[in-house]
Amino acid sequence: MRVVVTGGFGFLGQQVTDVLLARRTLCGAPVDRLLLADRNVPAATPVADHPLVDVVRGDLSERLDDVFRHPVDVVIHLASAVSAECESDFDLGMTANLDTTRALLDAARAQSAAGGPTPRVVFSSSVAVYGSDPAAPLPPVVDERTLPTPQSSYGTQKRVCEQLIAEYTRRGFVDGRVARLMTVAVRPGAPNAAASGFLSGIIREPLSGLPATCPVDPALRVALASPRRTVEGILRIAEAGRDNGPGSLEGRLPVNLPALTVTVADMLDALRRVAGDAVADLVTVAPDPAIEAIVGSWPASFDNARARALGLRPDDDFESVVRAYIQDHPDAVTVAVGKSGH
Amino acid sequence: MRVVVTGGFGFLGQQVTDVLLARRTLCGAPVDRLLLADRNVPAATPVADHPLVDVVRGDLSERLDDVFRHPVDVVIHLASAVSAECESDFDLGMTANLDTTRALLDAARAQSAAGGPTPRVVFSSSVAVYGSDPAAPLPPVVDERTLPTPQSSYGTQKRVCEQLIAEYTRRGFVDGRVARLMTVAVRPGAPNAAASGFLSGIIREPLSGLPATCPVDPALRVALASPRRTVEGILRIAEAGRDNGPGSLEGRLPVNLPALTVTVADMLDALRRVAGDAVADLVTVAPDPAIEAIVGSWPASFDNARARALGLRPDDDFESVVRAYIQDHPDAVTVAVGKSGH
Repeated sequence: MRVVVTGGFGFLGQQVTDVLLARRTLCGAPVDRLLLADRNVPAATPVADHPLVDVVRGDLSERLDDVFRHPVDVVIHLASAVSAECESDFDLGMTANLDTTRALLDAARAQSAAGGPTPRVVFSSSVAVYGSDPAAPLPPVVDERTLPTPQSSYGTQKRVCEQLIAEYTRRGFVDGRVARLMTVAVRPGAPNAAASGFLSGIIREPLSGLPATCPVDPALRVALASPRRTVEGILRIAEAGRDNGPGSLEGRLPVNLPALTVTVADMLDALRRVAGDAVADLVTVAPDPAIEAIVGSWPASFDNARARALGLRPDDDFESVVRAYIQDHPDAVTVAVGKSGH
Repeated sequence: MRVVVTGGFGFLGQQVTDVLLARRTLCGAPVDRLLLADRNVPAATPVADHPLVDVVRGDLSERLDDVFRHPVDVVIHLASAVSAECESDFDLGMTANLDTTRALLDAARAQSAAGGPTPRVVFSSSVAVYGSDPAAPLPPVVDERTLPTPQSSYGTQKRVCEQLIAEYTRRGFVDGRVARLMTVAVRPGAPNAAASGFLSGIIREPLSGLPATCPVDPALRVALASPRRTVEGILRIAEAGRDNGPGSLEGRLPVNLPALTVTVADMLDALRRVAGDAVADLVTVAPDPAIEAIVGSWPASFDNARARALGLRPDDDFESVVRAYIQDHPDAVTVAVGKSGH
């Protein structure tokens, strides 16, 4: 089968790619070709030279003819403008997130309408579809029946795309799936423009000996998932059956990926236990109302029964997330870290 | 103030226009100009010659420069492709309902961004945003906290527009309001392509001596509102305050207009009581699975607490709806009807 990963050279795209190239199967069939579409393709990247991999570089909306030049069986749509840039540039977010996803859905629909396979489209949505509206606060525990009332442009765009995918699926144009990602931490690499970026930065930067700023009150509760668990969730939802029964999507679309609920203070305590006081003291708390407003509007506690029914589970605790980051990114960790903890 | 009514020569548009021209005020200010935008403008229509009225004819998305040539204070956005045509022509619905509404919102945003008034945009949404998904059925009683899971293209488009309006409002681009209309019955005039059109036709056609087909099981329960109550609701939501307190929108957007819940059999019984057996017997029951699927997916029972807080109430009963139709459209009623009922 031919699999497309949009945002294929982004952080999650690379994680998904690595897993697919290691497994070589998806949805019970061999992965014959893996097309990575991204506007940014690193100059030197071994994966681009992999014999199974094709690369399409550029704005996705302008390159859909190339993406669908050969029949596509599965699209894992990770390409997205992130939350803070959507908030600062409304039109950019509407174009990158809403218009591009719709164009992708129309390209997939054109393939099935022309007699080709009906593409399975796996959309990476976000916890940001939920927002705590002062006049209609979220319930203390959120599940997929909770009415999303996004309080950010990014969350609105993700929610609208979820509904377009549901509709394209209802009409038989695509076989759509929606994985709502929790905040992914700890992300490696450079900071991005996500409002939630600090939730990786306050761990990642100190572990490389750099200072970091925590722009929220450490008492803030957040819903996190490690990169490993996030990729596992995306691929599980890609492979889930659509019919009723255990381990299926039971006809409904969005699945909230399992969330580990912690306070930011819990995260900093875990860093302190793993890496010591000198490293943890590199974090300075300096609340930024704009960041607090976005991240604080997201729910922190979930009933993950749907994800559990698919066999998905949250990370055990944040300390194990920090240790997994250190294990997966040894080159990015420049401070001395005890191997067995405190 | 300058008021725009899109779909201004449609049935509801004309009702809203008549009320506005009679009242001459909206939101506490005099209505100085009333612009009616519609792709279809009747050849001879007295309202077009009214001294307060301007007319813009054509596709709304192509005429927005003319609509916003002078500062607009309030837009009542009624223009829409209807449910059955959206189901039979997916692209038409996406263009007419989603793209046109977004273009309207962007034109309104351009006005406020240029230093003009922030337009109040009143969007006519629909009960069709709710759909009974077999895997996730609706609760027995629906309110504004119920998660909409539309089961039609029309419902999806309306729901997506609701969320765009919430977002444009959150960002301060417009002052958006959303009135979710129940099925409006009894509509006068020719049948339209709405899946719910028969809910007017089974009353209207017999009252003019014509046969009518009921395409659903008469036991089906439906949520109705008369044209009078519907127009009242749209204007009340246009005028509601946005701040907290009784009679305000309390910050939240969609309001379900009050619903009269009846079975189709109740409707036919009311017709029989008002107009007699010979008229009621003009209706033939011949279920059409396509119509039943759309209309049957809509909820029939509502908790209308939000609408009640705004002072809105449902019709008393369906017999009074039939009598109001006869009173408002004497020329369309050709059969003999007792003036005081049975």
